[in-house]
Amino acid sequence: MLFHVRMDVHLPPDLDPATRDDLIAREKAYSQQLQRNGKWPQLWRIAGEYANFSILDTADNEELHRLLSGLPLFPYLDITVTPLATHPSKIAEDD
Amino acid sequence: MLFHVRMDVHLPPDLDPATRDDLIAREKAYSQQLQRNGKWPQLWRIAGEYANFSILDTADNEELHRLLSGLPLFPYLDITVTPLATHPSKIAEDD
Amino acid sequence: MLFHVRMDVHLPPDLDPATRDDLIAREKAYSQQLQRNGKWPQLWRIAGEYANFSILDTADNEELHRLLSGLPLFPYLDITVTPLATHPSKIAEDD
Amino acid sequence: MLFHVRMDVHLPPDLDPATRDDLIAREKAYSQQLQRNGKWPQLWRIAGEYANFSILDTADNEELHRLLSGLPLFPYLDITVTPLATHPSKIAEDD
Amino acid sequence: MLFHVRMDVHLPPDLDPATRDDLIAREKAYSQQLQRNGKWPQLWRIAGEYANFSILDTADNEELHRLLSGLPLFPYLDITVTPLATHPSKIAEDD
Amino acid sequence: MLFHVRMDVHLPPDLDPATRDDLIAREKAYSQQLQRNGKWPQLWRIAGEYANFSILDTADNEELHRLLSGLPLFPYLDITVTPLATHPSKIAEDD
Amino acid sequence: MLFHVRMDVHLPPDLDPATRDDLIAREKAYSQQLQRNGKWPQLWRIAGEYANFSILDTADNEELHRLLSGLPLFPYLDITVTPLATHPSKIAEDD
Amino acid sequence: MLFHVRMDVHLPPDLDPATRDDLIAREKAYSQQLQRNGKWPQLWRIAGEYANFSILDTADNEELHRLLSGLPLFPYLDITVTPLATHPSKIAEDD
Amino acid sequence: MLFHVRMDVHLPPDLDPATRDDLIAREKAYSQQLQRNGKWPQLWRIAGEYANFSILDTADNEELHRLLSGLPLFPYLDITVTPLATHPSKIAEDD
Amino acid sequence: MLFHVRMDVHLPPDLDPATRDDLIAREKAYSQQLQRNGKWPQLWRIAGEYANFSILDTADNEELHRLLSGLPLFPYLDITVTPLATHPSKIAEDD
Repeated sequence: MLFHVRMDVHLPPDLDPATRDDLIAREKAYSQQLQRNGKWPQLWRIAGEYANFSILDTADNEELHRLLSGLPLFPYLDITVTPLATHPSKIAEDD
Repeated sequence: MLFHVRMDVHLPPDLDPATRDDLIAREKAYSQQLQRNGKWPQLWRIAGEYANFSILDTADNEELHRLLSGLPLFPYLDITVTPLATHPSKIAEDD
Repeated sequence: MLFHVRMDVHLPPDLDPATRDDLIAREKAYSQQLQRNGKWPQLWRIAGEYANFSILDTADNEELHRLLSGLPLFPYLDITVTPLATHPSKIAEDD
Repeated sequence: MLFHVRMDVHLPPDLDPATRDDLIAREKAYSQQLQRNGKWPQLWRIAGEYANFSILDTADNEELHRLLSGLPLFPYLDITVTPLATHPSKIAEDD
Repeated sequence: MLFHVRMDVHLPPDLDPATRDDLIAREKAYSQQLQRNGKWPQLWRIAGEYANFSILDTADNEELHRLLSGLPLFPYLDITVTPLATHPSKIAEDD
Repeated sequence: MLFHVRMDVHLPPDLDPATRDDLIAREKAYSQQLQRNGKWPQLWRIAGEYANFSILDTADNEELHRLLSGLPLFPYLDITVTPLATHPSKIAEDD
Repeated sequence: MLFHVRMDVHLPPDLDPATRDDLIAREKAYSQQLQRNGKWPQLWRIAGEYANFSILDTADNEELHRLLSGLPLFPYLDITVTPLATHPSKIAEDD
Repeated sequence: MLFHVRMDVHLPPDLDPATRDDLIAREKAYSQQLQRNGKWPQLWRIAGEYANFSILDTADNEELHRLLSGLPLFPYLDITVTPLATHPSKIAEDD
Repeated sequence: MLFHVRMDVHLPPDLDPATRDDLIAREKAYSQQLQRNGKWPQLWRIAGEYANFSILDTADNEELHRLLSGLPLFPYLDITVTPLATHPSKIAEDD
Repeated sequence: MLFHVRMDVHLPPDLDPATRDDLIAREKAYSQQLQRNGKWPQLWRIAGEYANFSILDTADNEELHRLLSGLPLFPYLDITVTPLATHPSKIAEDD
């Protein structure tokens, strides 16, 4: 089941650099694990902003919340979730 | 080059049904042609709303505007465009 | 799977009364059918407004969109959907 | 009498972990006591956010304010209250 | 039980004058009846706007909604309700 | 002359408790003095929020500003003032 | 007593030209009468918009509302009123 | 003197096509005359929207308002003006 | 050339009192110098807020920005500038 | 390919002056390098604000994001990007 997610990152400019690097490294590893197992099929940087648009593909709302609230950067994120449905004009993948 | 687009459709409830059906049929054909030639790779319905999130893949901003302003429903749409870039945590498609 | 939904009704004051009555009667029947089969477990009027808060319980996002977009009043509604998850402080129903 | 309440939690990321754990533990106990005595009949996590939608059932506005302002997390909450009324399409619980 | 209510009136400028006069006369009579029986203890015009701030005093949310949705101008109103509680600094009326 | 005032209090959660208690005690005394001399005839807590709706009755805008800017909590308040006029549907107090 | 007022004019583009001309002529006469008797000491066009910033000088809120609600264009205006007070850095007129 | 201007065009979808074509042709001629005489040095379409960003170069605010309010599409435009100044990091044109 | 300016002051409540007093004294002197030389012809306190509405009269946008960005309180201000033009209904000063 | 960019700078007033000066000097050098190589063809200060409007001219969205996220002030900026297209009324540069 697909969800559209916007994440805006608000790291304080004066955050300790080592803490910051650690947070970002853990966020990257976490995200890539979810990408590899198919839970996070799309991820784009919003040009000019410290923010992303993502598509998550989870079994249900519970799994969606568990994955998002487990993000290492979660305390620094503004997150907006929008549930998606099939668009009636969408062609089949192999159309 | 990828762009994130949100389209909200505002068709007046009292629009003549034949006009409405014709507009929607032409919108669908237009959209599917762009999906088939790779210009509109992603299209989702926003659950509960007459609106969609789309990803368009165009050569540049000019082509993007030409495609969007050519939508049969364009006079009834609120459109928001966000340019996308590669996210540093994105894994390769075949990773 | 639970979704929180807010619906604001915008019927034009000069709508033909028979059309209006018919719309509202069909909306009521549609809503009550969904309440009876468990898809619409909660429904409240927002005091002082022509609007409601609802909880819908659907198999997935697809069913949610199908049910909402099938509302007889759909062309006159502003709808906002929020996916819900279990709260960690929630006690069991029979606690 | 029912009230719809949205609570958004804004705990500073650098809050002392022991203080944080204590606050959250007291919030949970407080909430569960109100759930057990029927004052807080519904509580959902908003997927992807540190926020909840709640239904409170109090004797009047006074009791509602006393319960909400007594939340251990109150100084860190943005709270929005909406009074609810019976919806004319609502079926009886045992319908 | 007290509620703070803001009402903004949006009568179309081209409304038939007789209809308009009738609506406003019925609104006035309705409001004054509620003022006389103590349900609508405070009513002020917002200077420079076709809008008012009101205090309603009803037994509960149900009565509040019944009174507000029965306003002759209801289809033309934007209404915002805020439940009120006793302020801890408020002196007694006869203090 | 009547003014409608909304005050939202933003005290930092980590404010020194003695400073906080002193501020609140002085605010209460200040408010009650104005209530006693008729300048602050109405004061309600907004249910669920650290905020109030007030009616102030001052000779003019100058006095209004002097009273509000003298509030001990003034540096921590967001204040919105709305001038009020007599509503044409208002009945006389002794009607 | 001074009030800052912003007025945004929303005349429908398809308004009958004679009606429009009459409204604007009456608005101008009304405004100039108030300027001449000192009630409307300042009036500026907001560059690029069909809107103005004004300063009104009235005995009280009642007179302010009476003057504004009597504007021939009142049904087509969005009006925002802000009460003004003397600024502590203001020099005397003849300073 | 430079001004940044955003113009959003709101032509009703059911406007008579001849009226629409005439309006747009006159708007184009008007704009191009101002471009040729140096008053409107920059003009861009906002991709995906019926809107533009413009830079106008006028002697003063008066001329700016005269030019904008003379636009044939003016009754259908939402216009926002922002005055511009030299940026301290701007290099000279021939740097 | 006239500009309408709104300034909202956001001094941190815990600012060192001497620093605060110095800032405010320098702001006052700066403002009064501009009032005396005719650059800042109008200045009003917004009742109930730490904010002002001002009219500035400068040769051009450059001078406007130089004067505003030179305000001692500039780092603590939210400033909104609106260029003004002559209103067609304005009577002559000596009318 | 042209992009319209608005940047709002939020430097904390209590930032260490040497750090501040260094940041601003590096920002200026960075900006001027991009202006010289044609990537940042337009740059204006927004009068009265610590903000700018810019036009960037990059090969694609990727380059746009790389340039913006490399700004020395990036952690202190709110950035909004709008892709631009040719306006149909734009005259040729040498028209």
